[in-house]
Amino acid sequence: MKRIGLKVAYDGTDFAGYQIQPNERTVQGELESVLKNIHKGMSIRVTASGRTDTGVHARGQIVHFDTSLSFPVDRWPIALNSQLPADIRVLEAADVPADFHARYSAKTKEYRYRVLTSAQADVFRRNYTYHVRYPLDVEAMQRAAVQLLGTHDFSSFCTAKAEVEDKVRTIEDVALWREGDELIFSIRGNGFLYNMVRIIVGTLLEIGAGKRSAEEVAKILAARSREAAGKTAPGHGLILWSVEYDEWQAGK
Amino acid sequence: MKRIGLKVAYDGTDFAGYQIQPNERTVQGELESVLKNIHKGMSIRVTASGRTDTGVHARGQIVHFDTSLSFPVDRWPIALNSQLPADIRVLEAADVPADFHARYSAKTKEYRYRVLTSAQADVFRRNYTYHVRYPLDVEAMQRAAVQLLGTHDFSSFCTAKAEVEDKVRTIEDVALWREGDELIFSIRGNGFLYNMVRIIVGTLLEIGAGKRSAEEVAKILAARSREAAGKTAPGHGLILWSVEYDEWQAGK
Repeated sequence: MKRIGLKVAYDGTDFAGYQIQPNERTVQGELESVLKNIHKGMSIRVTASGRTDTGVHARGQIVHFDTSLSFPVDRWPIALNSQLPADIRVLEAADVPADFHARYSAKTKEYRYRVLTSAQADVFRRNYTYHVRYPLDVEAMQRAAVQLLGTHDFSSFCTAKAEVEDKVRTIEDVALWREGDELIFSIRGNGFLYNMVRIIVGTLLEIGAGKRSAEEVAKILAARSREAAGKTAPGHGLILWSVEYDEWQAGK
Repeated sequence: MKRIGLKVAYDGTDFAGYQIQPNERTVQGELESVLKNIHKGMSIRVTASGRTDTGVHARGQIVHFDTSLSFPVDRWPIALNSQLPADIRVLEAADVPADFHARYSAKTKEYRYRVLTSAQADVFRRNYTYHVRYPLDVEAMQRAAVQLLGTHDFSSFCTAKAEVEDKVRTIEDVALWREGDELIFSIRGNGFLYNMVRIIVGTLLEIGAGKRSAEEVAKILAARSREAAGKTAPGHGLILWSVEYDEWQAGK
């Protein structure tokens, strides 16, 4: 038995999220269905660094699975891509140690969020950016964003119904910059709660719009309540950018 | 009665082309259906600068229609976009003269074609670029492309079943350049035959791959036969970039 790690990109537009569900088209479902073919009907379970929601994209999702097949590791992307739909691509495969775990071994994850700030909507980016028509005070958003750096209880930035108990996470990097007519938000941390990036982005957009002040962030964190933060930004602007491991640098 | 010109962008992915057809989702069909709503059930015919095929995109398609409604011209984009699907956007509207005709008044049209040259397919550009894995001699392609400049009989670069009689067209500009991992092809002329740009691109790719020499272009033109040219490149790499008129510069 060997454990294989895969770096996977997908366009989340036509998926009901990453996680397998009956009667829904999911990324995990597609991956497992192709692996089952390759393993002659044997079910193979795929484990990801984390699930992504409906419409959320990935440039560097990491998954692992165990196999008794022994062909060279660089054949895996070719074998899988030849059967996968065009909106999922396996970019890399690696032999990983038997104790490697896509979720538990992850050191940090980076997410990005794209906001389109042009006056006109763009048909070609409608599924990859969140279009915001109001003017944004980017400097205020940056002042707000840096307050998220470090270790905090992120209860205010987590869906209220989340079941996880420990809501303390560490944000190692946060940045916000203009790229043409887009505003790109990047956040890297040791883990993210459910909807955390989207609630952070939604809150920063309210700060950028002048509905809240940049100085409010400390208060929102201290409140430890979902009601204290802003709206959840839509999923289609979000992309799982990369996942980093000690054992494997494929997420870069 | 007033004639209105519209500059329209669309993502061709989910359309069976521009031209209206029964039981198919088309750009013209969507535009006419929304115009019918706005005109309280009265059918409004929309005329475009030209049709585009299944999967072909437009950044600056121009259409016109006649209306008895008299609201300010800058309200048209807002009124139409509020009812159009997200993969069609009206970017501009203009009052045009009664004798303006989206097709017959067009002076020149520019098409672009995007070829993705990276080793890996890109899930986010799969519908907007043609992915080519073999190495391309761009310099040879450029030498070939400039031979298309000027006025020629383009019968060799036209689908054999095309019904038009006069196959003489003038190419005013042709260019080919790298943009990141893409190769962009641009062609501007006074008119294009059916599949002409896609057959030109397909032929240039065969030259870039070394299957044909750059010097063959004159011979292909002289043959006046579809068999002399290369394969038709896929529609999804093609985009109608702009249309220019004396009366209206909206196509820019």
